[in-house]
Amino acid sequence: MANDIRITILYDFYGEMLTEKQRDFLNYYYNDDLSLAEIAENEGITRQGVRDAIKRAEAQLYDMENKLGFVEKFEKIENRMNEIIDCADAINAYNLEHDLSREINESSVRIKSLALSVIE
Amino acid sequence: MANDIRITILYDFYGEMLTEKQRDFLNYYYNDDLSLAEIAENEGITRQGVRDAIKRAEAQLYDMENKLGFVEKFEKIENRMNEIIDCADAINAYNLEHDLSREINESSVRIKSLALSVIE
Repeated sequence: MANDIRITILYDFYGEMLTEKQRDFLNYYYNDDLSLAEIAENEGITRQGVRDAIKRAEAQLYDMENKLGFVEKFEKIENRMNEIIDCADAINAYNLEHDLSREINESSVRIKSLALSVIE
Repeated sequence: MANDIRITILYDFYGEMLTEKQRDFLNYYYNDDLSLAEIAENEGITRQGVRDAIKRAEAQLYDMENKLGFVEKFEKIENRMNEIIDCADAINAYNLEHDLSREINESSVRIKSLALSVIE
């Protein structure tokens, strides 16, 4: 169906806005890797019914990202955190190499840990 | 009605998920500071109708934050960015005071600018 990885990310961000049934279907299909036919049999509905329900849920997820854009915002933040981590590493390496200061060492380590805590 | 500042923040985050009419009502009430009676007259509906529409829109905004939590997530990120900025400032001040290194100066300035770009 849709791009699996993108759907998984959108689901992580916006899944709570779907109904429990929609979340179940997406989980069966994307996480448990069940086929449409298997889900249909388990749920006692048609294969086409499962397909439509999943398509609708996916459309809702894409629609929310189009309107709210939080995945894109977090991806930008993630890029900036990675750049901050690189800078903090550079400061730390330079500082250690030139045997400069404990204060600078501590602050650069703290910066790295804060930036990591945002993206982990 | 509800807490104005909180509503304004929730509206900034989730307003795009409301209908155009709901957004209009919230704008008239919170941004333009019109009274319920004034909005009612402009829109040709009852004061109670306006009140109900605004209450419903507010409830939807609170519901989205309860489910998605992006305001809370961004507030946490903001706190971390402020702490990163403090650390970068500390590195920079120490570095300048002790006349240590251009590399450390440049990296700490870059860190501060990246952290600021996330919260501005």
